[in-house]
Amino acid sequence: MALTGVLRPGHVALRVLDMKAAVRHYTEVLGLLEVARDAAGRVFLKAWDEHDHHSVVLRETDRAGMDYMGWRVDSPATLERLAGEVQASGLATDCRWIAAGEHPGTGRRFRFTVATGHVMELYAEKDKVGNGMPTTNPEISPDGLRGMAPTRFDHCLLYGDDLDGAMKLFVEVLGFTLTEKVIAGPDQTIIAAFLTCSNKPHDVAFIRHAEKGKFHHASFILDNWGEVLKAADIISKNRVSLDIGPTRHGITRGETIYFFDPSGNRNEVFSGGYISYPDRPALTWTEEDIGRAIFYHDRRLNEAFLSVVT
Amino acid sequence: MALTGVLRPGHVALRVLDMKAAVRHYTEVLGLLEVARDAAGRVFLKAWDEHDHHSVVLRETDRAGMDYMGWRVDSPATLERLAGEVQASGLATDCRWIAAGEHPGTGRRFRFTVATGHVMELYAEKDKVGNGMPTTNPEISPDGLRGMAPTRFDHCLLYGDDLDGAMKLFVEVLGFTLTEKVIAGPDQTIIAAFLTCSNKPHDVAFIRHAEKGKFHHASFILDNWGEVLKAADIISKNRVSLDIGPTRHGITRGETIYFFDPSGNRNEVFSGGYISYPDRPALTWTEEDIGRAIFYHDRRLNEAFLSVVT
Amino acid sequence: MALTGVLRPGHVALRVLDMKAAVRHYTEVLGLLEVARDAAGRVFLKAWDEHDHHSVVLRETDRAGMDYMGWRVDSPATLERLAGEVQASGLATDCRWIAAGEHPGTGRRFRFTVATGHVMELYAEKDKVGNGMPTTNPEISPDGLRGMAPTRFDHCLLYGDDLDGAMKLFVEVLGFTLTEKVIAGPDQTIIAAFLTCSNKPHDVAFIRHAEKGKFHHASFILDNWGEVLKAADIISKNRVSLDIGPTRHGITRGETIYFFDPSGNRNEVFSGGYISYPDRPALTWTEEDIGRAIFYHDRRLNEAFLSVVT
Amino acid sequence: MALTGVLRPGHVALRVLDMKAAVRHYTEVLGLLEVARDAAGRVFLKAWDEHDHHSVVLRETDRAGMDYMGWRVDSPATLERLAGEVQASGLATDCRWIAAGEHPGTGRRFRFTVATGHVMELYAEKDKVGNGMPTTNPEISPDGLRGMAPTRFDHCLLYGDDLDGAMKLFVEVLGFTLTEKVIAGPDQTIIAAFLTCSNKPHDVAFIRHAEKGKFHHASFILDNWGEVLKAADIISKNRVSLDIGPTRHGITRGETIYFFDPSGNRNEVFSGGYISYPDRPALTWTEEDIGRAIFYHDRRLNEAFLSVVT
Repeated sequence: MALTGVLRPGHVALRVLDMKAAVRHYTEVLGLLEVARDAAGRVFLKAWDEHDHHSVVLRETDRAGMDYMGWRVDSPATLERLAGEVQASGLATDCRWIAAGEHPGTGRRFRFTVATGHVMELYAEKDKVGNGMPTTNPEISPDGLRGMAPTRFDHCLLYGDDLDGAMKLFVEVLGFTLTEKVIAGPDQTIIAAFLTCSNKPHDVAFIRHAEKGKFHHASFILDNWGEVLKAADIISKNRVSLDIGPTRHGITRGETIYFFDPSGNRNEVFSGGYISYPDRPALTWTEEDIGRAIFYHDRRLNEAFLSVVT
Repeated sequence: MALTGVLRPGHVALRVLDMKAAVRHYTEVLGLLEVARDAAGRVFLKAWDEHDHHSVVLRETDRAGMDYMGWRVDSPATLERLAGEVQASGLATDCRWIAAGEHPGTGRRFRFTVATGHVMELYAEKDKVGNGMPTTNPEISPDGLRGMAPTRFDHCLLYGDDLDGAMKLFVEVLGFTLTEKVIAGPDQTIIAAFLTCSNKPHDVAFIRHAEKGKFHHASFILDNWGEVLKAADIISKNRVSLDIGPTRHGITRGETIYFFDPSGNRNEVFSGGYISYPDRPALTWTEEDIGRAIFYHDRRLNEAFLSVVT
Repeated sequence: MALTGVLRPGHVALRVLDMKAAVRHYTEVLGLLEVARDAAGRVFLKAWDEHDHHSVVLRETDRAGMDYMGWRVDSPATLERLAGEVQASGLATDCRWIAAGEHPGTGRRFRFTVATGHVMELYAEKDKVGNGMPTTNPEISPDGLRGMAPTRFDHCLLYGDDLDGAMKLFVEVLGFTLTEKVIAGPDQTIIAAFLTCSNKPHDVAFIRHAEKGKFHHASFILDNWGEVLKAADIISKNRVSLDIGPTRHGITRGETIYFFDPSGNRNEVFSGGYISYPDRPALTWTEEDIGRAIFYHDRRLNEAFLSVVT
Repeated sequence: MALTGVLRPGHVALRVLDMKAAVRHYTEVLGLLEVARDAAGRVFLKAWDEHDHHSVVLRETDRAGMDYMGWRVDSPATLERLAGEVQASGLATDCRWIAAGEHPGTGRRFRFTVATGHVMELYAEKDKVGNGMPTTNPEISPDGLRGMAPTRFDHCLLYGDDLDGAMKLFVEVLGFTLTEKVIAGPDQTIIAAFLTCSNKPHDVAFIRHAEKGKFHHASFILDNWGEVLKAADIISKNRVSLDIGPTRHGITRGETIYFFDPSGNRNEVFSGGYISYPDRPALTWTEEDIGRAIFYHDRRLNEAFLSVVT
């Protein structure tokens, strides 16, 4: 009861072109903590206030982008049930189990590909490694944080073709709620969908796009707008490639800044956004207001923001 | 799935000594919107970003305090089921149904008294009146907001004797999660419990106290620490009685300020706090650190904060 | 002693194409207060925390831009002395006195044109009308503020040809200090100069530009970065044309947002910036870092920002 | 012209009981930078954005408090002139010159005692050591800052008996402006005076107090209210003794927090406050509003804040 089923985005696995540069970026600039490396050279990281073993997985290869995104469900029983329902839904392909331990500290994961071509995973068990503070009489943050130091991995925005199929799976099978959508064209087609499994205004979002399986950004949450400024300053001081921001989204109302990791994968750090409930009416944005929907202050589409994906 | 069962604190009904002064306080200082008055003279208000008909009910009488607190559940079926489970639990007394319409725009409510003596209600239906903006191409806030203008009613802190009984009902019957607790005494008795049905660090909290059914505060959420300062300035300019703040809580990490309505009921506005999940380890605070738990900066107990309740 | 001679930018006179639209913009969006209108139809406004009669003068005509900028000096004796020194310097043309009362509530002004073609004025007397609060036991702000509500008119940025001549006058005759400069070209020519007569990082700035007497922006100061976000939200809600921001300047470190009044005159509101003293070493920015100098986060020149002037 | 005569508070010399604990506090908690130690064991520190050699001098002895406060004047000629005027004024005692080099990197200082018993110094020369960044193409802050990291030493608040004599010297001889005062008693005696030599709302302040030469606090400036919260969190994490805050002053409007160094000397970090000019009307606070004058939110006098001095 209360918060059940799919609880949260638990990890995102990103492909990077140069692991050393990537690790420097994700630890010193973004401010995640390196937790583990495995035999295959993958690097596992977490944001400081996450208690689970890791939330970001980096793999070095010759093409940037997202390998998969993982979702923490509330129990092994729910994992079992949802795996069955995903498989039975006909809305996913390439369904299979990944053995426990394939990610360090992580139980078995049920992997499948959604209609937009993105690989998703469900899992119920990941080691609790804590947030760097005792659970008795803690401080409000641990010592030694570096960089932007977001508290958590928050969501991904993904580009792919069959948006309707992906939405259907997330809403009807996984229990997500549509919080906002953008519609366009003579048939008022949904071209962007924002989905939540929690009180957050989104846990994942999809943009309709000709090519399957593309990655727009992985987002991490900051405490407030002052931290967004600090992030912007860190971006400049480290000569990180800035995409856009600081600004606000019309969609979600979040205060945001976008930038690129050294491989060209887009990152976001943001703060704010409304508190969402399943019975909150979904918001709709139409084509003529899409600029304001995405960048509330500018109210102009930024072509690179729309088209640069990995 | 996802957010289910009890969704949120939906309303708090407060007793005030002078309705005119109370309405001025709750609309011009706190910045709620008056939505309706009923034949009995009760005044119904809401925070601007709530879509439901009302979240605060004021009733004029000769003793301040809280009449009851209401919880929105996800559906009539859940309401029916939870009503049965509450009744069957033996953890509640005075169980009964309040007819639809007794609150304007609201369906029937299942009312019961928990072990601390507080009256609670569950309900599944309340009119959606919107947040003052269209659901197509909205702005990020409506025009004409006044005062502190919190976005939502967030939680209550309640004082009563049988803390264990109340906790048991909220956790075992209503599906809440304990996020933090304070323990004290030779038996490490729980003297304070913070409970959530969502991603928020608390939706209700209880303090062990000799007398039944006492009210410590109703809390409303602001966007950020800058808004807490603005609230503090509004408090002073309106010569509102300040209790404590701006400061931060160790518990929840929230940035906060407390003050009193003209009847002596304590209000809080706050921002921040961590994102909570059911699998996040519960935090424990011990007696020697209780000052820091409550007021992280001062690290001192404020006797009035502890003892003044209505 | 202490703060002497030229004290501050005291007024800026702007040309607008449609007075009604302009007044709406400067009062409801920017949040200045209308103080007076004169027989010629000019409108006089002030920021709320200025005690002097006015700081912005609007005149309706068919071409946008700045008519002149006025500087408050510490006394009539200083006015007399500086008028003589300006005239004797050979660095100003069209020197003449404007009679007391030509601006309502204002003493006589000494007007002259600097080498960049901008008309400047010195004056020593303007009526004190207060900041909307008593001088005994005041609050920290008056009631009823609207819009962005900056506390003060802060500075102008002006484009013109003979930057060296203007700088020479401001530094050698009027006692200003150069805080920062941008140099470019084979001869390391100064192409931008930031000048202060106070603790502020600039009270006026000049950009070298082919045409004389052009106006880039008038700037107004806000309390903090949170107010910059509020300003950005107000810009969007009012469909004001945004130029750039929220962002930070490398030069001055100020947190800023730029936008246009309905006539195309650029406005800035900003917060922050360092505390300047005459003995602080002047900073130099070179051509290759000019993007970062102007927009610290983007580190890219925005062509419109550079070239659109009125 | 412009900013002349006495430019700013240039240093404060504090007595500490345990140098090791003091240095840890002033570097790791407050976040100053240690610059030098001398043969006598004195430690010299500066805030990061000050270009001068040092602004805080610590001396270990058996009684806490302030040894003296130093003021930077604009030139050796001004130093010579003001030294003569101070001596001639009859408002200072114990006038004498301290040789160049007695403070490392510092020219000769003219020392005198004002009527409240506080030792003051004027000096014109101190080595420029920079702010940790180049003067060509700098960043907006250096790397490696720790603790609260204020940008500058800002002012002191001092307690002493002959407030009128000290005010007279600062205003009539040194050219300061009275920005605010508190009056009390049947004769409306000035019991607190806030004085500026710049655009800041105060550079020094005095409280009337029976004993001569007492020290209330040394204050350091932060960028904004978000930094005040960060300072409060640092205070708690380091178990520093908090006096009061975060809160706002009615006087100056500054956003503030007070705490004690390990020797019991009070420190303040603050942000905000209005921009002051010599012609701004001085504000007056009366006895009945003194609580609100000092702590705008609480509007209550805190006895310890008033009476604990070193």
